[in-house]
Amino acid sequence: MQEAAHVATNAVHHVGGDVVHAVAAAAHNVHEAVVHQAEASSHSITHMMMHLIIQLAVIIVVAKIGGYLFQRFLKMPSVLGELASGMLIGPYALGGMIDIPNLGILFAESHGFAATPQLYGIATLASIILLFLAGLETDLAAFIRYSVVGSFVGLGGLFAAFVLGDLCAVFWPGNGIDSFMDPAALFLGVISVATSVGITARILAEKQKMASPEGVTILAGAVFDDVFGIVTLAIVMGMAKVSLGGGEVNWGEIGIIAAKAIGFFVVVTALGLIFSRKITAMIKKFKSTEIIVSICFGLALLLAGLAEMAGLAMIIGAYIMGLALSRTDLAHEIEHHMEGVYNLLVPIFFCVMGMMVDFAAMKPVLIFGSVYSLLAIVSKVVGCGLPAYAMKFNLRGSLRIGLGMLPRGEVALIVAGIGLASGIIDQGIFGVSIMMTVVTTMLAPPLLVKSFEGGSGLRKEMDGGGEDVEVIELAFPSRDITEFLLNRFVRALQAEEFFVHHLHTEQPTYRVLKDDIAFTLVQDGGKLIINVPQANQHVARMILLEELLSLTDLLESTKQMKDLDEMGSDLMSGLFA
Amino acid sequence: MQEAAHVATNAVHHVGGDVVHAVAAAAHNVHEAVVHQAEASSHSITHMMMHLIIQLAVIIVVAKIGGYLFQRFLKMPSVLGELASGMLIGPYALGGMIDIPNLGILFAESHGFAATPQLYGIATLASIILLFLAGLETDLAAFIRYSVVGSFVGLGGLFAAFVLGDLCAVFWPGNGIDSFMDPAALFLGVISVATSVGITARILAEKQKMASPEGVTILAGAVFDDVFGIVTLAIVMGMAKVSLGGGEVNWGEIGIIAAKAIGFFVVVTALGLIFSRKITAMIKKFKSTEIIVSICFGLALLLAGLAEMAGLAMIIGAYIMGLALSRTDLAHEIEHHMEGVYNLLVPIFFCVMGMMVDFAAMKPVLIFGSVYSLLAIVSKVVGCGLPAYAMKFNLRGSLRIGLGMLPRGEVALIVAGIGLASGIIDQGIFGVSIMMTVVTTMLAPPLLVKSFEGGSGLRKEMDGGGEDVEVIELAFPSRDITEFLLNRFVRALQAEEFFVHHLHTEQPTYRVLKDDIAFTLVQDGGKLIINVPQANQHVARMILLEELLSLTDLLESTKQMKDLDEMGSDLMSGLFA
Repeated sequence: MQEAAHVATNAVHHVGGDVVHAVAAAAHNVHEAVVHQAEASSHSITHMMMHLIIQLAVIIVVAKIGGYLFQRFLKMPSVLGELASGMLIGPYALGGMIDIPNLGILFAESHGFAATPQLYGIATLASIILLFLAGLETDLAAFIRYSVVGSFVGLGGLFAAFVLGDLCAVFWPGNGIDSFMDPAALFLGVISVATSVGITARILAEKQKMASPEGVTILAGAVFDDVFGIVTLAIVMGMAKVSLGGGEVNWGEIGIIAAKAIGFFVVVTALGLIFSRKITAMIKKFKSTEIIVSICFGLALLLAGLAEMAGLAMIIGAYIMGLALSRTDLAHEIEHHMEGVYNLLVPIFFCVMGMMVDFAAMKPVLIFGSVYSLLAIVSKVVGCGLPAYAMKFNLRGSLRIGLGMLPRGEVALIVAGIGLASGIIDQGIFGVSIMMTVVTTMLAPPLLVKSFEGGSGLRKEMDGGGEDVEVIELAFPSRDITEFLLNRFVRALQAEEFFVHHLHTEQPTYRVLKDDIAFTLVQDGGKLIINVPQANQHVARMILLEELLSLTDLLESTKQMKDLDEMGSDLMSGLFA
Repeated sequence: MQEAAHVATNAVHHVGGDVVHAVAAAAHNVHEAVVHQAEASSHSITHMMMHLIIQLAVIIVVAKIGGYLFQRFLKMPSVLGELASGMLIGPYALGGMIDIPNLGILFAESHGFAATPQLYGIATLASIILLFLAGLETDLAAFIRYSVVGSFVGLGGLFAAFVLGDLCAVFWPGNGIDSFMDPAALFLGVISVATSVGITARILAEKQKMASPEGVTILAGAVFDDVFGIVTLAIVMGMAKVSLGGGEVNWGEIGIIAAKAIGFFVVVTALGLIFSRKITAMIKKFKSTEIIVSICFGLALLLAGLAEMAGLAMIIGAYIMGLALSRTDLAHEIEHHMEGVYNLLVPIFFCVMGMMVDFAAMKPVLIFGSVYSLLAIVSKVVGCGLPAYAMKFNLRGSLRIGLGMLPRGEVALIVAGIGLASGIIDQGIFGVSIMMTVVTTMLAPPLLVKSFEGGSGLRKEMDGGGEDVEVIELAFPSRDITEFLLNRFVRALQAEEFFVHHLHTEQPTYRVLKDDIAFTLVQDGGKLIINVPQANQHVARMILLEELLSLTDLLESTKQMKDLDEMGSDLMSGLFA
């Protein structure tokens, strides 16, 4: 493209000289350009593909190793390692310097964007997979009837983060942003909204505080945070579209846009929930799980595309589709089948996000970034801590909850990526968002561990044993048996209408909730570890016993199967006949 | 690109008129084009992504349903259904007519190619996954010491198919191809080489002929076919590159090119086999299977890219990497983890291949296509049948083997795609290749079923019971238990140095081979079906019994675990305390 344009521009430069000659030259150049282009179009697709495949090879290997190092040695979520790998190998760092013969620059800017459309396409696909699975793992029904404290904590943090993030941009001098409704300001608000509870969950699990009142509240708050974060993004996308179109956004219009965005969310989710059973019943006619999973994912892609066409973002559609399917019995099956795709593609997304960080563009906004990050911390600590303090927690407990809600992660990165790709935020602001994500995620663990020293976080000790957690460990003879049993167990719990939340942590961790019952299941190699608070232990044990008995029955029936016996005697007779 | 070129061409059209005016107009147009382009570059990336995601949604849903319909109702491999879906929704059919508001034409040509780089990138990734897994499922060591008949059958069919495919192009009048060494002719040769044994395997399994002498020979022949097909492709790519560069290819040079290609294959594969255990030992330090699988796949992508840079094709590198890892204990793990990615992405590849079929371009070459398809049939029936007849089979048996080797499939499509993308073959020849693939795959099943009527296919009855097949059915209480046991069983067999070949058929089917022992495992829902010939049954039963006993032990130990008992009594005491 650049070449053809360049040729034409050349022709124009000749205007001052011999005009006829210039036109002839232009004609010649254009002819050459067209021929060149035709050649390029047939040849370069293989070259582009070769380049893409080598880029993917480098990204997958480096991102996976980076993620591993961060997880293993820094005890940080692997997403930070993937991000850091991207910064290292991106076009603004090493990748822009490595020039391979017969290939060219390993990672070069393409039309002012850090990734080629073909690489960004795979990253986009990964972001949709991420949000689809996030939706799938949220249980909306449980969410609706869930803890009041959790909802206030989630909403408080969300509101504070959004307002402070936006205002930070408005009051910062010299950036040209002077209105709360400026699309860039709105994006800075919405980027700082979504809490990523993964690292908090791991620390809670390690310190055996998952079933503590603070732990339960944090995990409940995070669910609200997820759902309302997506709704907020929908509203902001609507407002940004109006602003970008040159329109002034007044409060009346915001009402309409918000109503539309919430309407889209509620109506589509409701339709999804109502029809999901019918649709899945229809899809199930295909019998093969593989086809069923693919078609469900195809529908998620379709809703993602439609959401974007409706002026929202693709991830909103993907999340809603996941949410709609979360109440069906396919949820666990889809999640299980898509795990491989998730593991392979999602790190590519985070690495590509890291590659987009342009250090040169970040330099002038470093101070702004520090203030923005600080406000992102304050907003969650205060925004989540205040409602907690107003309910049943003391200062210590409120601080723990605020710190638990501190880390930002996947969703913040995706939203920042959307802002950059759509041109709403520039590379500087994008870098600032990455900085905020990294700072909050890295600060949370030490602060959280520190805060859990000392006594109870409740205003007055509630019924004595509220914080005593029972740890039940079951050791099985092999890892695959444990995995098998865990999967069966999760499915049985879901069939009994439990809300089972799969946390993407290093070890498979499931959070099980229903009404007042809450416990966690962690698979650690061949061991199954169950954390259950004293108060719930009777119910939890009852359910576990029931499940174990039915498993024992199943194993017994397998062992004593007629066929196995027959086969054994068959074998003997065959051998000695 | 087209726009800028168009603008420039416009400027040139004015040469006959007012020249100065024309140049000014050109200047103006060029300016507009450049501005437009700059705008497009920041905005259009989100639009491109939205378009891509909607295309992927349509492709996944349509391809999966198409594959299902072909498999279920036509008893054809799903790949044909995916291909047909692509033809239906491609830019030269429905997809080129559907114009969606705010989106544009659903599937449009992009720079003379049926897919955009971002869509083709995902398809290319899928083709690499396909060949990586194909390599992983081939056992080179078993292949080396395997049946002599199989090797002659495989090589005979390969040689005949290559020569006849190439000569067909040379002797066909009016296509401008007059040399055996013409790149297009070479590609027509190599496209017709690779047998796709999937549908044959299914028919053999259904008719319980998998363990028959013909069945064993066909499956052995297909392994040779795979490996030598890849080597042939490597040689042809080398020759085509020289020809395209304007050089005349003489026989001396072919020798050098062939030596280089075979050398690359042998050296890299040997290095892979030698170091694979060391490399995997190193990779295994990461402990998490997920990371290990990703890094192995990253290395496959890297070798794919390097193969392309060395003048070969990417799939060759991917296949070699699979081959190198096939002897390690990671093979089954990688295969298992990548199944989800395979199921989701590979149908996209076949659908995109179908989309590339330009019916208008095919019309003038339909008769040529019919002759080419006919020769593709003759070449395998004669090329595989003759060596079989020369060894121990009679005419009936030789025909069965020839027909079993008839269907072409995945690899033929990938090679044709490579030819089209690199500009070596045009859209007409590409269409012809698809036609040949479809014709051979559709004709094989009825002919094969018919040919298996009647008596033995052996020249003289060998040791009586050679064809008697024992069928052992084990019914388990649930599908997941069966899957679990099958997986354990496969791993145990691999640990005992068996060559376990996973066939991608509708039901999970494993072909187990070692020296003279050969049997098949098929999972049909909750049932495990074992096909074993009389001659092998003692050994097979022995191994099965051993495995079943160790499984029984494992289940027993699980059931009687101290922890479970403790937990039970714990529970009781907890409840009644």
